[in-house]
Amino acid sequence: MIFRQLFDRESCTYTYLIAHEKSGEAILVDPVINNVAQYLQLVEELDLNLVLAIDTHIHADHITGLGALRTETLCAIAMGEHAKAECVNHKVREGEQLKVGDIRLDVLYTPGHTDDSYSFVMQDRVLTGDTLLIRGTGRTDFQNGDPSAQYDSLFNKLLKLPDDTLVYPAHDYNGMTVSTIIEERMYNPRLQVGSEQEYVDLMNGLKLDDPKLMDIAVPSNLACGQAPDDTN
Amino acid sequence: MIFRQLFDRESCTYTYLIAHEKSGEAILVDPVINNVAQYLQLVEELDLNLVLAIDTHIHADHITGLGALRTETLCAIAMGEHAKAECVNHKVREGEQLKVGDIRLDVLYTPGHTDDSYSFVMQDRVLTGDTLLIRGTGRTDFQNGDPSAQYDSLFNKLLKLPDDTLVYPAHDYNGMTVSTIIEERMYNPRLQVGSEQEYVDLMNGLKLDDPKLMDIAVPSNLACGQAPDDTN
Repeated sequence: MIFRQLFDRESCTYTYLIAHEKSGEAILVDPVINNVAQYLQLVEELDLNLVLAIDTHIHADHITGLGALRTETLCAIAMGEHAKAECVNHKVREGEQLKVGDIRLDVLYTPGHTDDSYSFVMQDRVLTGDTLLIRGTGRTDFQNGDPSAQYDSLFNKLLKLPDDTLVYPAHDYNGMTVSTIIEERMYNPRLQVGSEQEYVDLMNGLKLDDPKLMDIAVPSNLACGQAPDDTN
Repeated sequence: MIFRQLFDRESCTYTYLIAHEKSGEAILVDPVINNVAQYLQLVEELDLNLVLAIDTHIHADHITGLGALRTETLCAIAMGEHAKAECVNHKVREGEQLKVGDIRLDVLYTPGHTDDSYSFVMQDRVLTGDTLLIRGTGRTDFQNGDPSAQYDSLFNKLLKLPDDTLVYPAHDYNGMTVSTIIEERMYNPRLQVGSEQEYVDLMNGLKLDDPKLMDIAVPSNLACGQAPDDTN
């Protein structure tokens, strides 16, 4: 397996290129529009065929590269079934399996940060989007965020994965690149709560500023990162 | 093996925490002074014992965390034998093996970016410092940099490693986290030269500005990141 973590310094987003060497099939998870040329160059250099680009959720802090990638490569583009984005070719749902050559990604619905947040579980690792971050969790105060739903996604889904599962989030602001489920269960300050209510109170008390790009990024991302008259 | 790549956003430095799970022994490569608290927290959370911190070379763009790590943990600190830093406990030389539990790092002398640049070769990966970067190479215009020596380090040492060896550099400015030897041989623009002289001409023609922190970082790093009267 080829597994490449790519970092967007402006939004601190991690994008993942996952590919099966034998078949050459590749997918991109959470691509950022500004870096599409970089992704395409890497895909070409590694002699891969991009079959799918997918977002874990509608991002509020950067514009997705999904639409541009489809335009450039004719790859399929996808989001979760709860995403109100009619621009995608396919909407994934919990229990579905994405295949990249013989690599399998199990789709897990993990709402809370937004109501359209999904995680992708692989054999030894999980892409957690903004649901579970390294020593943090995604905020729950916009885009139908819901701390109760996030508690359920965290405690009843993600933290039930095997202890040594590698955690690859969609963002990190502190230079951490990877963690594990057991580390997050033990040391993630947001997860040291005794009850769902305690988690809800913690999240509701955060009082964060809106992301700078939110008013631009969300409508744009509902159109897969393209202007409404630019979708295809 | 625990292998953690940590990113310093200010200087775009990658620091590596490498540890042997069974023995708990750990080393840090190229720590940045501003992030020492983060490293120590991670070492503690992972229940590790930091036995060594080492720099691939005297950095000009950030202040090393070596001295602070020794003060905080009593770990040994090291650089290569060509580093004019009397503050270290140990100077490594080509052919030496560093042991972290049963993990082995072979020391390779790879001058060119500076005359004190070393790489550390592991079973499936290599830490290349500033000698080989992802789609780049370290500049050779200060600190006894030498494009001829770098050509030799690159073409006669690093590029002779197995094709699929993972390349982990000390910096990346474009959000790339890892590469491989074959990728760099094929696609690194600095390595598409027909002769040593062509490489020397290419590097001598770069005309780069000095790193912002150079006048502060180099003298400080010769003292392991501590003021001269603060070394121990």
